[in-house]
Amino acid sequence: MNQESPLPKRTEIAELGEFGLIRRLTENFPLAQPSSLVGIGDDAAVIAQDGQCTLLTTDMMLEGIHFDLAYFPLAHLGYKAVVTNLSDICAMNGMPGQILVSIAASNRFSVEALELLYQGIRQACSDYRVDLVGGDTCSSLRGLVISVTAIGRQVKEKIAYRHGARPGDLLYVTGNLGGAYLGVQLLEREKQLFLENPTIQPDLEGQSQVIGRFLKPRARNDVVLWLDKAGVVPTAMIDLSDGLSSDLMHLCKASGTGAEIQEALLPIEEEAKLLALKFQVDPMNCALNGGEDYELLFAISPEDAQRIQFLPGLHYIGSCLEASEGISLVGSSGRRHPLKAQGWQHF
Amino acid sequence: MNQESPLPKRTEIAELGEFGLIRRLTENFPLAQPSSLVGIGDDAAVIAQDGQCTLLTTDMMLEGIHFDLAYFPLAHLGYKAVVTNLSDICAMNGMPGQILVSIAASNRFSVEALELLYQGIRQACSDYRVDLVGGDTCSSLRGLVISVTAIGRQVKEKIAYRHGARPGDLLYVTGNLGGAYLGVQLLEREKQLFLENPTIQPDLEGQSQVIGRFLKPRARNDVVLWLDKAGVVPTAMIDLSDGLSSDLMHLCKASGTGAEIQEALLPIEEEAKLLALKFQVDPMNCALNGGEDYELLFAISPEDAQRIQFLPGLHYIGSCLEASEGISLVGSSGRRHPLKAQGWQHF
Repeated sequence: MNQESPLPKRTEIAELGEFGLIRRLTENFPLAQPSSLVGIGDDAAVIAQDGQCTLLTTDMMLEGIHFDLAYFPLAHLGYKAVVTNLSDICAMNGMPGQILVSIAASNRFSVEALELLYQGIRQACSDYRVDLVGGDTCSSLRGLVISVTAIGRQVKEKIAYRHGARPGDLLYVTGNLGGAYLGVQLLEREKQLFLENPTIQPDLEGQSQVIGRFLKPRARNDVVLWLDKAGVVPTAMIDLSDGLSSDLMHLCKASGTGAEIQEALLPIEEEAKLLALKFQVDPMNCALNGGEDYELLFAISPEDAQRIQFLPGLHYIGSCLEASEGISLVGSSGRRHPLKAQGWQHF
Repeated sequence: MNQESPLPKRTEIAELGEFGLIRRLTENFPLAQPSSLVGIGDDAAVIAQDGQCTLLTTDMMLEGIHFDLAYFPLAHLGYKAVVTNLSDICAMNGMPGQILVSIAASNRFSVEALELLYQGIRQACSDYRVDLVGGDTCSSLRGLVISVTAIGRQVKEKIAYRHGARPGDLLYVTGNLGGAYLGVQLLEREKQLFLENPTIQPDLEGQSQVIGRFLKPRARNDVVLWLDKAGVVPTAMIDLSDGLSSDLMHLCKASGTGAEIQEALLPIEEEAKLLALKFQVDPMNCALNGGEDYELLFAISPEDAQRIQFLPGLHYIGSCLEASEGISLVGSSGRRHPLKAQGWQHF
């Protein structure tokens, strides 16, 4: 009848942070199955089976922690919950094929509200040609919880891990950065104004890009296909969920390299620049540390550069260095600034 | 800035129930990938790849809905969350290989408490030789949420679905029934006594079987191996999570058959019988409608009966009939009673 025996020590979760907690909880989980090629620590797990590998990733989103239904329409939420998982499969250079979706909802939610959520899930399935093949549906005491698992495939030789980059490799990002961060800032501001004065109408004119970035991100499966057609396998790849600085650090740490990226080469969303001015924040900071853009950051061998030069929307931003040279941003004046990770932390 | 447009109608989740809600939300999700063999509706999804298939299942457990930490030690909770998912893989006649585990915890939980949870997860991984290969760890506003996805494998020809039983097939259950239901009743009673008088000591003497049934269930991967050695593939199989009545109905409905099971042949846990007497409940009712035993119910062709007759712990309980004959329990007097599903419903 007793709960656990009295705990000798109490360490707060916040003391470790998200990554520290994951490390602490999942150490001492040796892989015993020969098919388990890669476990925890990359964008997705890799399970081998006759050359073809299955890629697996999962994410949980909770109301009040990861989303605010005051400005996150349920259909968009369903869409985003799927896409962020597909993005992790793409970040392994894999093609997503199936998803499992579990939800827990309190009786505050009607069946019709949950149908809106599934409308968004269905739209994402249709846009990315993935199948919903399973899940769980249960009640919660309060709030909405969504847990999505995505399944993808790739032949073993074409999987891109975080750990394969070498000094001298070239670094690229897909698409533009900073939009999602400014999108959420904008929505937060409008929510505050609305709470202060419910008769006020939201002023979102001309902000569809950044809001779309946040509410309806895309997974870059198109880039996976382009790279495949170009015959290029990135030496390392990661998706930008925490922010460029933070995710570049993950990639470099896993690869055992340093890196240098050029401020002048960073692609910033046009609308994000204008909005940054309006909010009086540094757009470069938004591009570096605003998360949830779900673009891809990857490294390639210099000899592959020519093969991808005509692919659309790829931006060369710098290169990998020896680990001893650290990770830095080179300003327009040529000065080097060590990069700091200030990405979004949910803990 | 608006939430969804005004909803025309509000249907309460409770009006549909769990299965009705799943049907409503997941209709109109056609399978587009050639590799998606089976989606929603069985114990696990089946994804094909060169003859070998990947089996996938997922379950979410929420504090206050699925478990009560007052009597559910965290290590047991982690163990059970894994095993119930492995059981779904076994129910497809598959062998589990990997799991993904996501948790959300409020700051009420210390790192040490979560370590106890992962101790149980590790124990289950070790007992069943499965690897933890991924997951997500995040914070919640309140309560603990655990979402587990299990991955298994089986060659296409040996997968047992719910839908393959034919009239004349023989029905078997593994192990004994009713224990988990009485285990939870016992723990609930002790909790109430404790709440009324915190100095009282729990009286769990001689009840280790039923409590173990509930707190530390097992997945019957041993039965999957025995059946394989015997060269038998069940024509249909399901695991007993909702209760024998309810799960037999699922199997029969999917297979388009009726069934007749014999009261005298139902294996009831010895300790459960004694406890049922003490609690003045009908032990037969516990065996039929108490859920969470996680034993397997399966059907085989009559010609396979001889091959499995010496396998340990298998109980022949009846046979499949034409659908028009319904699903019934034959009492010791020979009278037939139509079976009703009264399984555990979380909604």
